[in-house]
Amino acid sequence: MVSILITAGPTREHLDDVRFLSNASSGRMGIALTDAALAAGHEVTLVLGPVELEPPRGATVEHVESALAMQAAAERAFDGCDVAIAAAAVADWRPAVRSAGKPPKQEGTATIELVPNPDIVAGLAARKGRRVVVGFALESTAAGIAAAVARGRKKLQQKQLDAVVVNLHDTIGSSAAECVLCRADGADETVPRQDKQSVARRIVAMAVDLWRRRQAT
Amino acid sequence: MVSILITAGPTREHLDDVRFLSNASSGRMGIALTDAALAAGHEVTLVLGPVELEPPRGATVEHVESALAMQAAAERAFDGCDVAIAAAAVADWRPAVRSAGKPPKQEGTATIELVPNPDIVAGLAARKGRRVVVGFALESTAAGIAAAVARGRKKLQQKQLDAVVVNLHDTIGSSAAECVLCRADGADETVPRQDKQSVARRIVAMAVDLWRRRQAT
Repeated sequence: MVSILITAGPTREHLDDVRFLSNASSGRMGIALTDAALAAGHEVTLVLGPVELEPPRGATVEHVESALAMQAAAERAFDGCDVAIAAAAVADWRPAVRSAGKPPKQEGTATIELVPNPDIVAGLAARKGRRVVVGFALESTAAGIAAAVARGRKKLQQKQLDAVVVNLHDTIGSSAAECVLCRADGADETVPRQDKQSVARRIVAMAVDLWRRRQAT
Repeated sequence: MVSILITAGPTREHLDDVRFLSNASSGRMGIALTDAALAAGHEVTLVLGPVELEPPRGATVEHVESALAMQAAAERAFDGCDVAIAAAAVADWRPAVRSAGKPPKQEGTATIELVPNPDIVAGLAARKGRRVVVGFALESTAAGIAAAVARGRKKLQQKQLDAVVVNLHDTIGSSAAECVLCRADGADETVPRQDKQSVARRIVAMAVDLWRRRQAT
């Protein structure tokens, strides 16, 4: 049994009590990863952004809203984990200022100042020791699949990840590959389009295999 | 049988293909209004922003994402309706520019320029003729309930609405009133906190009653 930290869902970065910046992540991949890990007999801590889906029973779930809250929860959980799989779609920026309440609508144009959010998975990988850290990258295939995979592999190297799941979002709805698993050891595995449950099982198996091989060395 | 246009849910105002500005509206009140109107034998066109909930069978549903798309769909549907109930939580602003694809994260701070979205319910009310238009206002009770209701009533007058449902969001979770129905004829009706289905039935009944009385004059 391996202890796995999974982050999932979007984050919300509030301008005030009502308005926020976010993205359309449903949390489905992170929840599928959690199901797959539990079914394989592992222990899961799920750090989950705001989603409508119910998290699986059997996981320890921490509900968070902002990237900063997700980072704090993930850093805390990582101390007791062997593997981290960061499937959350963390907002890249947050408003520099959060206003109280719901300020009334103003006439005319407005400006929001944004500051960058921390790179949560890179922060985990920077202090991973013998643990395994897997990230996700959503890459456009506008310049071709090879270029998208190359960008994913560059992120893997910069962030010191053990593997990165490159999601090829332009190929969704086509019969082409849906994602490519890039490993730090140089191997690339193309995963044909299939349901998220099957993809999730493959990702969990790869991450646990990387961890087992590292413990054996 | 009365023909009712209902807007519901949030809108999403995209910065690019992935990132957007929005709010946490679930669409539950608009869907409860739709259920109540259908159960009372009325015809419903539901213009629905992006929500996880399934819209009720029996309504004509138009799915939209942005405020501009919601406005276009609502304006179109309003031509054939007797009553409009605008329960959607429309974003006040949208980014001045929508970038293509998913631009990579930049180092350092960033700025978003925002332009005001149209006031959809005010646009409907401005050309309503003998139709009835009901709006919603989410008001803080930080300065007291009377001040919140006064702000709601001011919106009613400015937008030429027939009624406005003032949601007192600070009282959610308390035993105090959840909303106040303010009518253009000067009547205020305090609706104690109760499930959204009951509140929705009350709002639909009030709107249809206003419409019937107007046709009788």
